Amino acid sequence: MAAPSPHLLPDHACLIVHGTDRPGIVAAVSALITRHEGNIVAFDQYSDDPTGGDYFQRVVFHRPDLAAAIPELEDDLARTLGGGFDLQWSLTDQSTPKRMAILASKQDHCLLDLLWRHRRGELPVTIPMVVSNHTTAAEDVRTFGVPFFHVPSVPGPDKSESEEKILELLADNVDFVVLARYMQILSADFLDKLGVPVINIHHSFLPAFIGAEPYKKAKERGVKLIGATSHYVTSDLDEGPIIEQDTVRVTHADSSLELARRGADVERQVLSRAVLWHAQDRVIRHGNHTIVF
Amino acid sequence: MAAPSPHLLPDHACLIVHGTDRPGIVAAVSALITRHEGNIVAFDQYSDDPTGGDYFQRVVFHRPDLAAAIPELEDDLARTLGGGFDLQWSLTDQSTPKRMAILASKQDHCLLDLLWRHRRGELPVTIPMVVSNHTTAAEDVRTFGVPFFHVPSVPGPDKSESEEKILELLADNVDFVVLARYMQILSADFLDKLGVPVINIHHSFLPAFIGAEPYKKAKERGVKLIGATSHYVTSDLDEGPIIEQDTVRVTHADSSLELARRGADVERQVLSRAVLWHAQDRVIRHGNHTIVF
Amino acid sequence: MAAPSPHLLPDHACLIVHGTDRPGIVAAVSALITRHEGNIVAFDQYSDDPTGGDYFQRVVFHRPDLAAAIPELEDDLARTLGGGFDLQWSLTDQSTPKRMAILASKQDHCLLDLLWRHRRGELPVTIPMVVSNHTTAAEDVRTFGVPFFHVPSVPGPDKSESEEKILELLADNVDFVVLARYMQILSADFLDKLGVPVINIHHSFLPAFIGAEPYKKAKERGVKLIGATSHYVTSDLDEGPIIEQDTVRVTHADSSLELARRGADVERQVLSRAVLWHAQDRVIRHGNHTIVF
Amino acid sequence: MAAPSPHLLPDHACLIVHGTDRPGIVAAVSALITRHEGNIVAFDQYSDDPTGGDYFQRVVFHRPDLAAAIPELEDDLARTLGGGFDLQWSLTDQSTPKRMAILASKQDHCLLDLLWRHRRGELPVTIPMVVSNHTTAAEDVRTFGVPFFHVPSVPGPDKSESEEKILELLADNVDFVVLARYMQILSADFLDKLGVPVINIHHSFLPAFIGAEPYKKAKERGVKLIGATSHYVTSDLDEGPIIEQDTVRVTHADSSLELARRGADVERQVLSRAVLWHAQDRVIRHGNHTIVF
Repeated sequence: MAAPSPHLLPDHACLIVHGTDRPGIVAAVSALITRHEGNIVAFDQYSDDPTGGDYFQRVVFHRPDLAAAIPELEDDLARTLGGGFDLQWSLTDQSTPKRMAILASKQDHCLLDLLWRHRRGELPVTIPMVVSNHTTAAEDVRTFGVPFFHVPSVPGPDKSESEEKILELLADNVDFVVLARYMQILSADFLDKLGVPVINIHHSFLPAFIGAEPYKKAKERGVKLIGATSHYVTSDLDEGPIIEQDTVRVTHADSSLELARRGADVERQVLSRAVLWHAQDRVIRHGNHTIVF
Repeated sequence: MAAPSPHLLPDHACLIVHGTDRPGIVAAVSALITRHEGNIVAFDQYSDDPTGGDYFQRVVFHRPDLAAAIPELEDDLARTLGGGFDLQWSLTDQSTPKRMAILASKQDHCLLDLLWRHRRGELPVTIPMVVSNHTTAAEDVRTFGVPFFHVPSVPGPDKSESEEKILELLADNVDFVVLARYMQILSADFLDKLGVPVINIHHSFLPAFIGAEPYKKAKERGVKLIGATSHYVTSDLDEGPIIEQDTVRVTHADSSLELARRGADVERQVLSRAVLWHAQDRVIRHGNHTIVF
Repeated sequence: MAAPSPHLLPDHACLIVHGTDRPGIVAAVSALITRHEGNIVAFDQYSDDPTGGDYFQRVVFHRPDLAAAIPELEDDLARTLGGGFDLQWSLTDQSTPKRMAILASKQDHCLLDLLWRHRRGELPVTIPMVVSNHTTAAEDVRTFGVPFFHVPSVPGPDKSESEEKILELLADNVDFVVLARYMQILSADFLDKLGVPVINIHHSFLPAFIGAEPYKKAKERGVKLIGATSHYVTSDLDEGPIIEQDTVRVTHADSSLELARRGADVERQVLSRAVLWHAQDRVIRHGNHTIVF
Repeated sequence: MAAPSPHLLPDHACLIVHGTDRPGIVAAVSALITRHEGNIVAFDQYSDDPTGGDYFQRVVFHRPDLAAAIPELEDDLARTLGGGFDLQWSLTDQSTPKRMAILASKQDHCLLDLLWRHRRGELPVTIPMVVSNHTTAAEDVRTFGVPFFHVPSVPGPDKSESEEKILELLADNVDFVVLARYMQILSADFLDKLGVPVINIHHSFLPAFIGAEPYKKAKERGVKLIGATSHYVTSDLDEGPIIEQDTVRVTHADSSLELARRGADVERQVLSRAVLWHAQDRVIRHGNHTIVF
């Protein structure tokens, strides 16, 4: 159904390394890749304090017959980076798409944009399911060949019943979850049990206009730009690490309905960039920040 | 010294009208201008609720020998708009520059930018003085042929002494005041006695990062864009009506020092646009909002 | 099928006036609207040379029972504007959607974006048909409840046969035509017989990279921004009046495939804005320029 | 006079490497730095074709007592990179500012912006001189403590006399030259004899509006954005490798004078970014392209 994504690279691995900065990490990592016959095609590195802070690195390398070589690579990485260094690492095969579930609601612009980008091959993911608390998008989603599940949001503060049902659907089936204007707050318990990253799109330039109805608040404050923010979800509402943001110009003449219409364009752009970068292992979380390579 | 500004238009008047919307205002205003031999060259109009809200209008017209005609125009405006309509109005001669004072501190980027633009003829203003609580910029300012006054900010919460001195300098000498990174909070009493509009530049995208050290806060929050906001000053800190805003992209690799450097570029752009529009009578204040034509 | 568009305004008329500037036009037009019991809700005016150039005006007014009043309004307009003035005018009922046909090819991003926006009520149009020279989008289009017609482009320079078929489909059925990456040059004869405006999206920042393969040319030149341009189609390739343009930042690391992917996002934004403004009668053509109110 | 630039880094070296891509370059370079006791603080790498194209790398490392270590580092680099690899390299001490001359004309916005940024410490350069073909900026330049030389441009196509004088001033005194709206075409002979990079700012979004009067041409074409381009100067007018570009929105109502005013803001931003990146050794020229790390 979907076009093959040019972001899925056969025999390419992505190695993420982060931890305490120390001289010699670049040399150790690149020597390791070279002795396993890898050819580095992209190398990004960032130290937040050159005199002894944290170290972050993303390296993509090509290695013929990568799958067969991964066990030995991982052994060597454990030895090399676990030894003299205080580093965490992860190695991913860039030919394997991540499995992305989408949680949606009535507003369909972010949902449809992700489904359509996936069909064009823009996103190196598979989409095993869309879960929505409304049925409005069911036919559209299935037209894209993606399973659709309806889990209504029960009224009131206790969301445990619907969260339970969503967890059953997602468990072990997905590598990350996108909230495409899902408009429900997920409990800390849900996030904990889910155990995979969750990416949200908030329809304001955070930290301005946290919480409900940001376009209404933006109209009331009389701002001259509106924005959107994509971030990892934590148990603190709208406080998780920001992956991407953007803004667009508005005027006094734009109603809050018009702000919402223009904002929708920014939201889908910002969310799709955040999703692409996450799927490409370009984003490293560090406390409440992200490093985006 | 300064080049003549192309924004100073001989024999052109700007008429601002606002108040309760009612049918027939456009017709009444344009008929009035026509019967005084004016030719309309720019007409902007906005109604915030077509079914009976507020009406805002800016019209620029050419009228040979304008100065002689102004008394009769004003009489007719008072009759026409004060009668059947519930409207406020102001008529300004577009060949007369507004007198703009600048209050500054140590940071010179906004101050110098306004002085440069003025010298190039970009701003239809005169600059009768710069007042600063530091002496660092004195020589630069005087090079532009602009008087410089040093009024130190006394430490502690009571600013009445320095405010008193500033008021003596400004009183009756200025039509509006620009805070070019002045970094001092002005008391409600000062604003009241001053009696002319005051325009500030805040170094964040309001309402995000209100108050002190917004670049430090932006770094801590991990935002991917920083911004600047120019607004009219009211007694509520950073809450006055916004005239203009803009943002610029930053990354995880930018220190808060680098955020300040990039932000400085946005600040001076945003402030200079706000000052230009104010000087051209393009900005109408309405509660906590602005209409910018 | 589609949501009702908030841009369709019952009992609202849009009056476009343009021609030689002369004192008194605003007064004459607004007096006319007032005596027909219209209430002006938006008024935009532009003169390209205040000392005697061309005059452009767009005014939207509310008039209860508009449909019944239109004949008298038109009579009065003909008398008033045709008399002492040298002006052209058109009056449109803002509750009547324009009929928009889309010509498409294999690339579906602009096509689907317009269909989505229409379904959401963002565009005050109806879409009587999509005509494509490929069948790939047929199912997608019909899912939106829009008829799809396949007219293959015959190879070679003579396009008269396929143009003939397209003309038969469009004739009298549409108010304007959008080329959503149609990728075929339309002959002057076709445009002449069609007799309605045609809006194109070109995948470069015109006048840079006129003609075929602009992303490839952009890569070869090593530009740091790519863009898109929406313009009215004339018989001069890529030379028609520009309605809207935008750009997006790229780097040396982006392949021409990646430029095309990023450019697609700009294209659909730019095209949708141009279509919206045209459908709202906001765009006045003047020689090779547009005035966009 | 000028504030110390945070971009001047004591005991930091920048190593640029480029040439034919081959496996093992990253490992060889990082091992070399490690064995000379360097700690890598920034590492950027780009391969234009992972299956065997060109390789580009910028690495910044800290090494206590760098100056003493440079001869050995250079010997080792010559051995290591000149041996099995087909690579060019250059090593620069990041505590040494580059010497930047500015050539200017009557338009002062780019000139003053560079002088002011330098005084604030934003640019890791010294400015040994400004050469202008007009005397208008002499006093401003000297106020910044920078020598000013006046070399008039003789009329007619033969510029050899004034070029000769400029060459005498610049020879051996500068590491690169900036044309801050110099508005004169430099001969291939001049560029050849000068022998250091020359950076220009062109007041359009190249390749649109090559040559003279781009704002006038932009007005005639009716574009909705204007731009600026900074590029290395070659003997082909406006065809050199692009370092940076940006655009800003304009409307039908902006005269070509207003385009020039708005464009000036974009020009100084674009030029200052290009100059900063060049001074930081972030820009690698490759044919008609640049890689900007």
